[in-house]
Amino acid sequence: MAKRIVNFNPGPAALPLSVLEQIRDEFLDYRGTGMSIIEISHRSKQFEETLNGAVQRTKRLLDLGDDFHVAFIQGGASLHFSMAPMNLALEGKPLDYINTGTWSTKAIKEAKILSKDVRVIASSEEKDFSYIPKSFPVDGNASYLHITSNNTIKGTQWADFPKAGQVPLACDMSSDIMSRPFDPKPFGLIYAGAQKNLGPAGSAMVIIRKDMLDRVPANLPSMLKYTTFTKENSLYNTPACFVIYTINLVLRWLEETVGGLRNMEKINREKADILYGFIDRSGFYRGTAEKDSRSLMNVTFRLPSEELEKKFLAEASNAGLGGLKGHRSVGGCRASIYNAIGVDEVRKLVDFMADFQKKEG
Amino acid sequence: MAKRIVNFNPGPAALPLSVLEQIRDEFLDYRGTGMSIIEISHRSKQFEETLNGAVQRTKRLLDLGDDFHVAFIQGGASLHFSMAPMNLALEGKPLDYINTGTWSTKAIKEAKILSKDVRVIASSEEKDFSYIPKSFPVDGNASYLHITSNNTIKGTQWADFPKAGQVPLACDMSSDIMSRPFDPKPFGLIYAGAQKNLGPAGSAMVIIRKDMLDRVPANLPSMLKYTTFTKENSLYNTPACFVIYTINLVLRWLEETVGGLRNMEKINREKADILYGFIDRSGFYRGTAEKDSRSLMNVTFRLPSEELEKKFLAEASNAGLGGLKGHRSVGGCRASIYNAIGVDEVRKLVDFMADFQKKEG
Repeated sequence: MAKRIVNFNPGPAALPLSVLEQIRDEFLDYRGTGMSIIEISHRSKQFEETLNGAVQRTKRLLDLGDDFHVAFIQGGASLHFSMAPMNLALEGKPLDYINTGTWSTKAIKEAKILSKDVRVIASSEEKDFSYIPKSFPVDGNASYLHITSNNTIKGTQWADFPKAGQVPLACDMSSDIMSRPFDPKPFGLIYAGAQKNLGPAGSAMVIIRKDMLDRVPANLPSMLKYTTFTKENSLYNTPACFVIYTINLVLRWLEETVGGLRNMEKINREKADILYGFIDRSGFYRGTAEKDSRSLMNVTFRLPSEELEKKFLAEASNAGLGGLKGHRSVGGCRASIYNAIGVDEVRKLVDFMADFQKKEG
Repeated sequence: MAKRIVNFNPGPAALPLSVLEQIRDEFLDYRGTGMSIIEISHRSKQFEETLNGAVQRTKRLLDLGDDFHVAFIQGGASLHFSMAPMNLALEGKPLDYINTGTWSTKAIKEAKILSKDVRVIASSEEKDFSYIPKSFPVDGNASYLHITSNNTIKGTQWADFPKAGQVPLACDMSSDIMSRPFDPKPFGLIYAGAQKNLGPAGSAMVIIRKDMLDRVPANLPSMLKYTTFTKENSLYNTPACFVIYTINLVLRWLEETVGGLRNMEKINREKADILYGFIDRSGFYRGTAEKDSRSLMNVTFRLPSEELEKKFLAEASNAGLGGLKGHRSVGGCRASIYNAIGVDEVRKLVDFMADFQKKEG
């Protein structure tokens, strides 16, 4: 039996054990091919089935319909901080951004490097990104409105997406994609690094509404054009095969074991309620995000002192609860409770937190 | 026991069985962490050891010394068709290319998209890319001279690299990196998709001479600047962790089991000699590349008719010899005999080819 810990890492993050076991079990002989999944051709029928499986499952889970393309592009979400403005900026129409933390800030920075007309129409920077802005002007003339749906570092999340009318939303959904259902129609572009709710690091999932493709300039480098990937079904060049293979297995788990995104959201809410509820009642632990902006994915909290935090993290690690350290830029503690973390695992954490408080509080 | 075939795929390609077995065996619990390698943080000490292992092994195997950076960048070799000219073009100094096939042609196309001053100083296109150009003018004023060291589709390879004096070579070494030792000093840039001799698809290995970094323009998008990856040891954003992990294991196999690149080259020459020798003596099979330009990695050959080729491929597949079909753009047959293919496996192929000839010839 392999030793396994409870893994609260922010990403790369925990994946469903049944998926890991299947990868292990078929690793030397992928379904009778006599080759590993990492040795088969990306143009083989076996791999195309896997790729198409991942695309179709994404469409079903997110209820995308035929208006959207699903593509897999190497480079992580960070590449789309540049590709989004390169591909989707319209002449004379500004690029509007809402700044809710580190990743939004990076997206804004990269858009500015391209000398685009970039505007930050709302920001929570003045309160250390501890909340999601509630009211802001939306200009119907913008090329798009960019948001970060969940902020891993500060532990905030858009509960409801902004209403932008005809202006398409462009969204970095890296850390909460597939955690809940939502209406995809307002989104012109969704991109998400795989390494939280989808699979291993090494690819972004990109969902692009078909009308957006008319905007793609003809003279961009091939590897930086969304159309290159939509036209060739992510097979213009060799894609990150192993990542896509794993994503397909994770999405199958979501469909067949969890039962879809409505169920997933229910479970995610239950997990978050247990953990935030305990924190709020404790009088010892303290959540860092404003209550109505709290993330269901990344629960950020502090203890009464940095010394206690250090002790807490060390003892948690000894108890088989890993990855609870806050991001190096903010300190404190963070429990990332992505899809693959179960209710029982959150209860284990809460039990440990209660014991620690009893001892040290 | 897993069923295994002999895998002559051109890429993704065969990997050493011992590496695959190790990945399988530690897949649920990476070295006592209680997590899979695909669940651990890219900033953990375990992953940094793996990453630094891959970098150091690359430096040792290729005898790079301190003049070179080794980085891992997602996007495959194709991204460097654009990144090389974006990063390394010098004002008023043309970009020189030698065209030896499909991949060189794509590199040239992407450089032209960037409106750079691109010159093709030699080409073997007029003879269907069946040879490597032998003499050509090298202009000391060029920003760089770009070559493709091995051409998977046409089965040709540079036996000796061109002498370009002070002009740095920029080289797509995707399909023969780590197959032989060479003098790295003339190379300003080497890039190689991982999915042949290095590991799974999903990352390029990039080797860049330190003086080249002075050329990188300040205003490029962060993810398209070589300096972003060299400054942050490939950890600016989450890298393709699983690919880098596997590369480190393959490079360890190269160092510890094979015994370095001199041994690897000897084995690769032996394999190629056996196969080309048989083809030349057969009077039935026919090599497609000119003899002095033949690739040690991709052995391209034809049979007397397309009908026989079809039969040959079907019977080979039934005999457990896979991936022998030529590239869809040229047809015919191709045996890719990368590092992980052993001498005995090439003998198996030759035995099969002899039997087939006896029966059909």
